[in-house]
Amino acid sequence: MAYQPLDVNTSIDYVQNRPALKSILPPQGKLVAEEVGDGNLNLVFIIENQLNPEQSAVLKQALPYLRVAGDSWPLTRERMRFETQALLKQNELAPGLVPKVYDYDEEMSLVVMEYLGKHEIMRKPLVARKHFPLFTDHISTFLANTLFFTSDLYLTGVEKKELQAKFINPHLCKIQEDFVFTNPYMDSPENKWNPEIDAEVQAVRKNAELKIALAEMKKSYMTNGQALIHSDLHTGSIMLNEHDTRVIDPEFAFYGPMGFDVGAVLENLVLNYLSHYAHTPDFEQRTHYQAYLLDIVCNVWNEFARKFETLWKENNRGELAPNKYWDFPDGQTAFAKYRERYIQSVFHDTVGHGGAKMLRRMMGIVSIWDITSIEDLKKRAVCERLAIQIGSRWVLERRQINSVEQMVEIVREETKDVEI
Amino acid sequence: MAYQPLDVNTSIDYVQNRPALKSILPPQGKLVAEEVGDGNLNLVFIIENQLNPEQSAVLKQALPYLRVAGDSWPLTRERMRFETQALLKQNELAPGLVPKVYDYDEEMSLVVMEYLGKHEIMRKPLVARKHFPLFTDHISTFLANTLFFTSDLYLTGVEKKELQAKFINPHLCKIQEDFVFTNPYMDSPENKWNPEIDAEVQAVRKNAELKIALAEMKKSYMTNGQALIHSDLHTGSIMLNEHDTRVIDPEFAFYGPMGFDVGAVLENLVLNYLSHYAHTPDFEQRTHYQAYLLDIVCNVWNEFARKFETLWKENNRGELAPNKYWDFPDGQTAFAKYRERYIQSVFHDTVGHGGAKMLRRMMGIVSIWDITSIEDLKKRAVCERLAIQIGSRWVLERRQINSVEQMVEIVREETKDVEI
Repeated sequence: MAYQPLDVNTSIDYVQNRPALKSILPPQGKLVAEEVGDGNLNLVFIIENQLNPEQSAVLKQALPYLRVAGDSWPLTRERMRFETQALLKQNELAPGLVPKVYDYDEEMSLVVMEYLGKHEIMRKPLVARKHFPLFTDHISTFLANTLFFTSDLYLTGVEKKELQAKFINPHLCKIQEDFVFTNPYMDSPENKWNPEIDAEVQAVRKNAELKIALAEMKKSYMTNGQALIHSDLHTGSIMLNEHDTRVIDPEFAFYGPMGFDVGAVLENLVLNYLSHYAHTPDFEQRTHYQAYLLDIVCNVWNEFARKFETLWKENNRGELAPNKYWDFPDGQTAFAKYRERYIQSVFHDTVGHGGAKMLRRMMGIVSIWDITSIEDLKKRAVCERLAIQIGSRWVLERRQINSVEQMVEIVREETKDVEI
Repeated sequence: MAYQPLDVNTSIDYVQNRPALKSILPPQGKLVAEEVGDGNLNLVFIIENQLNPEQSAVLKQALPYLRVAGDSWPLTRERMRFETQALLKQNELAPGLVPKVYDYDEEMSLVVMEYLGKHEIMRKPLVARKHFPLFTDHISTFLANTLFFTSDLYLTGVEKKELQAKFINPHLCKIQEDFVFTNPYMDSPENKWNPEIDAEVQAVRKNAELKIALAEMKKSYMTNGQALIHSDLHTGSIMLNEHDTRVIDPEFAFYGPMGFDVGAVLENLVLNYLSHYAHTPDFEQRTHYQAYLLDIVCNVWNEFARKFETLWKENNRGELAPNKYWDFPDGQTAFAKYRERYIQSVFHDTVGHGGAKMLRRMMGIVSIWDITSIEDLKKRAVCERLAIQIGSRWVLERRQINSVEQMVEIVREETKDVEI
């Protein structure tokens, strides 16, 4: 079918004619479609069977972007391809932790996937101090599985490079390269920050050691093709409820450093922690929930590291360090030490990338709702100054921080006398 | 033209019908062809005009490899494409330091390039203690130009990833991954070593710290997509004379760590240094030439680093650390410090990869002529033991070795009491 943008009527005709969707949205149902996209880059339809609301799907279609001339359209189409490819791979590696893909139509630039009607984006419930007893287990499995099984530890060299070739994603990478690692720390028209923290923003821009360290993190992002990473794994890319967790929106996926994904999760939890100085005025309530968040931070890393190492021990089929290579007296001890050093280096990257991403949220193009929803700019500034302090220390001290407990200790140190 | 293997007659017909070769091998000449290839993977013809021997070319054509069934043929064709692409890129970036490419015919799996009739492969003249006054300047320019101009320091992120996509080279990479970093240090049928050093070979296989460090170097090779590297830059890939230097055979080219190329050059010079304990019995002659070789080692690194940094200062058009990012009080000092750290990290990789490649030459599938041409196995073993000592220390101490002078000091320490 030649490309044409769908609407609430044609989307129903479309899904009813797709063989792959016969069991999801049966033709004998009474389908209704609602368009919920932002109307800029993508159309997003929720399609439901009114006779049986269990039967539902989301159809996401790239739009030829009309506002800007030039090559946005190829970029948008490409984005849809990367998102679909990544979802399919993640479904294979971490089933149940991403939306299922029901159908993909390259010519129509659309993907049909599972509708997550009972999930919410993680930021809001975290601000509302909700508990998610299964989140740590779910996200650490997602991280361990997607990162391990796409790395040189599991794939052969040839398999890995074939997968890497499918995820050369230059335009989406450029967005992260510019907006995480460079532009926020220099004069650039798209930067936004709370005027109350102008002095701190200017200080970051002039901090020579910090800027050298941030450029080192950018080098890691641009060169370290370690695993197929999600590459935008903030809490706005996580939909969940008490029972279920799903990672969405993987259009930035490419072969990059594992620590960039793990760092994104930890950093977003800490930013949420800081936001409670404004969102949760009650001291008891606040300290209780903040302690819960720091526990999650520690547990996510520790569980990730444990699961990752277990996968490695049990599935060492890659060619980086094959079992036969460790076949010598005490070779198993050496292999264990190698695994420990490998995971430690992922941890140092986690600290550095987490810190960089925390900083950029305070002074770059993309802020985060947890913080920007604080209306009082002075109170917001208290949280933001702490984030700048913590993010800077994570970046600068990343090679000296050897455990997640130390990483969290920095959060405690910087927040021990907060007055708001 | 559909694929067909050429012979000494059809190769002349072929070149006379190619428009691109009209000015190189004029149809009115009296062309003669000689086949000089090894007859396994490639045909290699030297084609000359007998009326004007200045008019000459080399035609290299992939052969469907008959001895082994299966997929060697696609691999061989692919190899020819990588070699040609790399030669074209290197000609652009380091003109005069690689053979010129005259013509390329994908369907015929052949490339026609400059004939280097006045050059010799570097190993033999080094064993014969020849001096090459321009080598340091030439090879350091080759390294600085090809590595800088293909890195994120010069290319934009998008340009770099587009080039990287053309050089995803999994099968050739696998050869280096297996035969440099893994197989030589474990039981593997293709390994060869001098029986006189069996104890030392077995000791390497059981050396836990060394094997962990070698696996770390393998990780660097498999993940660090820093620049388009030659990836097989030993002294058998260098053809030269007193006036001219050419780097040949870049079929292994891919995006990898810069230090792998620089390390290959330095390591081969040190292996040649060691070979003189057998090749040059005269003490005066030997120590004089060995000092010359260690000078080259120091100068190649120092000149490479100087040229690389100058290129960076003068052409900082990449997006890793743009000039605007350093636009703050004393930002130029910070940028200088960043460049220094970047180059220092290339140096640590150089030491580690140089060490790994030195070790594999002693106990893996591919030995080197400088050493294997020593007929007396006991004398050869003296050189090989030294290489194992030096290679092991380079790998293990790579992060503590901060200058090429220290790197060379290890060579001096390990060879201070050699008796042969």
